[in-house]
Amino acid sequence: MYSLLSDLSIIEASSFVASPTAGLYCAQMGAEVIRVDPKEGGLDYDRYMLTIEGRSLSWENLNRAKKSVALDLRSEEGRELLVALAATAGNLITNLPEQSFLSHGAVAASRPDLVSLRIMGWHDGRQAMDFTVNAASGYPLMTGPEEWDAANPPPVNHVLPAWDFITGAYSAFALLAGIRHRERTGEGSELRVPLGDVAIGTVANSGAMAEMLYRGGDRERLGNAIWGAFGRDFTSRDGQRFMVAALTAKQWRGLVAAFGLGDAIAELEAEFGVSLASSDVPRFANRHRLFDAFQHAAGQMKWAELEARLLAEGCTYERYRTMHEAATDPVLVADNPLFGPSPANPSGFTYPAARSFANIPGQPRGNPQPAPFLGQHTEQVLADKLGLSSGHIAALVDRGVARLSDQPS
Amino acid sequence: MYSLLSDLSIIEASSFVASPTAGLYCAQMGAEVIRVDPKEGGLDYDRYMLTIEGRSLSWENLNRAKKSVALDLRSEEGRELLVALAATAGNLITNLPEQSFLSHGAVAASRPDLVSLRIMGWHDGRQAMDFTVNAASGYPLMTGPEEWDAANPPPVNHVLPAWDFITGAYSAFALLAGIRHRERTGEGSELRVPLGDVAIGTVANSGAMAEMLYRGGDRERLGNAIWGAFGRDFTSRDGQRFMVAALTAKQWRGLVAAFGLGDAIAELEAEFGVSLASSDVPRFANRHRLFDAFQHAAGQMKWAELEARLLAEGCTYERYRTMHEAATDPVLVADNPLFGPSPANPSGFTYPAARSFANIPGQPRGNPQPAPFLGQHTEQVLADKLGLSSGHIAALVDRGVARLSDQPS
Repeated sequence: MYSLLSDLSIIEASSFVASPTAGLYCAQMGAEVIRVDPKEGGLDYDRYMLTIEGRSLSWENLNRAKKSVALDLRSEEGRELLVALAATAGNLITNLPEQSFLSHGAVAASRPDLVSLRIMGWHDGRQAMDFTVNAASGYPLMTGPEEWDAANPPPVNHVLPAWDFITGAYSAFALLAGIRHRERTGEGSELRVPLGDVAIGTVANSGAMAEMLYRGGDRERLGNAIWGAFGRDFTSRDGQRFMVAALTAKQWRGLVAAFGLGDAIAELEAEFGVSLASSDVPRFANRHRLFDAFQHAAGQMKWAELEARLLAEGCTYERYRTMHEAATDPVLVADNPLFGPSPANPSGFTYPAARSFANIPGQPRGNPQPAPFLGQHTEQVLADKLGLSSGHIAALVDRGVARLSDQPS
Repeated sequence: MYSLLSDLSIIEASSFVASPTAGLYCAQMGAEVIRVDPKEGGLDYDRYMLTIEGRSLSWENLNRAKKSVALDLRSEEGRELLVALAATAGNLITNLPEQSFLSHGAVAASRPDLVSLRIMGWHDGRQAMDFTVNAASGYPLMTGPEEWDAANPPPVNHVLPAWDFITGAYSAFALLAGIRHRERTGEGSELRVPLGDVAIGTVANSGAMAEMLYRGGDRERLGNAIWGAFGRDFTSRDGQRFMVAALTAKQWRGLVAAFGLGDAIAELEAEFGVSLASSDVPRFANRHRLFDAFQHAAGQMKWAELEARLLAEGCTYERYRTMHEAATDPVLVADNPLFGPSPANPSGFTYPAARSFANIPGQPRGNPQPAPFLGQHTEQVLADKLGLSSGHIAALVDRGVARLSDQPS
């Protein structure tokens, strides 16, 4: 863990993926992130994959390096404690609805310079999740094999909840923008990030919305080909599938050399009357003929030979892995400084844990931290942040307003 | 445009998607983002979709609200100007290699408290792009229809360059973390964000890496079903495809009511011996039987009726749209405050433009800004930031070291 944000304290009242991710990124950069949950755990506390003992491997990865406070959030008293914690910290990440007890106004009443970051569904308050905004975005009807009926292809949902992760990272950015603004001006900010706006806004930012409007219709199906450039998956003689990409003349020349296609490409260039090294345009326009040539060449070579050639030419390529293969690949995980040794996870299961995506050369990266047990820091946080006495806290626990750690004794 | 970051000036030397996205998010929050490109434009200056006049709709959306400086970056003098601009701003976003003239050290030599954010391919310096890190991540071999041969499914690449967009948002966050740290301590930071680490790190953060290791193998194929919960695409009697999600008891009860399945579900619960409202687990475990019941019900109703019922029950659902349908959907675009009127785009094409994903209630959102013409701000920036005289700048232009706007006269 780096310490860039070590002076920050953030209350996170959230569930699922986007909102916990925003807190995770801050925690991995050294912020104190206190996740406040209902006594029985948030809606995501039992998200798959569950271990035999019922511990969520999803939860314990999305909530690393955070503290946990467990309160009865159905009770007035529990809600007041959460509002008081958010007001004390002055920084709040949440995906609770604005029309809840945790509105910006409710917290800002006692903390006018509050910076709150609220992840919403659609901008108008309608519920949405990654899976549903994705359906609206247009991407699922563009995904999948090129040969599918272009007039009526089935939707293909992504497995990566991409909108959640983009929203989480963007929300961490927006929160820091608000915090920095307060530090310079004294003003708080209420920031709202609708998941649906991240999706349709990304369609716009990528240029795809302008493209569809300019075309007056939808893009042709591309399968695994890269839009507007040269790249696709190919299969070696021994059946290894791999992806190659050439978006620059240098990448293109490297691929042609690695595949041993110098002569064949020269013949095609003569036939097409273009230089294929000149730009993406002729490579994309003639992609089907080029794909045939590349697949023919790939089918002549075993993967070991082909990879040696791709490596020697400095090509941009990667072999497809199943996720289990990825998880056990030393290049990706064991030998990658992104990962550190397993901390003592709540599940008891031992496996590599990720540090922050950003690395800072010359600064110690520290080791990844575990997620907390639910309520593990209830006592400490109520005492340190709200100044409650141990007697007061014990009474809250007795009355069921607060809960201590769910770690099995 | 909001003004949270209006006191910041950032030099961006970048291309493609991830790195320009980081600058875009900062610019949409009011930062002065100065993109410095080679005279002929960066590697992404001609990225598809191109208009008939050859203007990239991709470029003009990923570079909104930025300034543009065009220099001969092959010349020593042009490179020195870029290094001087980065040193003057003190903030740098780039995807140029560390082993280039724009290393952190080269800029920090005259600006020790520089905050640089460098987007890389793999952490070890190997080249990578969204398409290739995606192949390594495991997701493409999990994507696509459930009925495909589980032992040897073809890879399905995502069309959304999700890793680029996650990396872009995360990089904007990491940059602000570094800037804020400097403001508190005086220290600069060199932050590196490898695209490959964002991919394999997200596999870890999502819990999927732990899941595969815990299983000792890969997850079963799910098609469009939501992992570990209830949700899938269904088709109405009149052929409308739509996605539904139920991750909470409330969402589940709403869906059962909207589909008119109260009795059928009660029968299934009796047969299974479980309460399907109790948790995700029985809904996921029995998903195939449930999917059959839901599809049967959906096939009885036209979409208009079904949607009215889904809306009345407050369900989380969305109909699939093609991207052209999404781009022309008033709910998503024309009536969505995320979008503003078309600025004067370099392409001359007029279409809705997105504001920042984050909205701040009660603050004026301002209108989206256009991308610059290449070199549009060369003169202004060299004068204002480096104090060059107009004669000096004219000489740079004459000698081909700097270029003015490529706007057709």
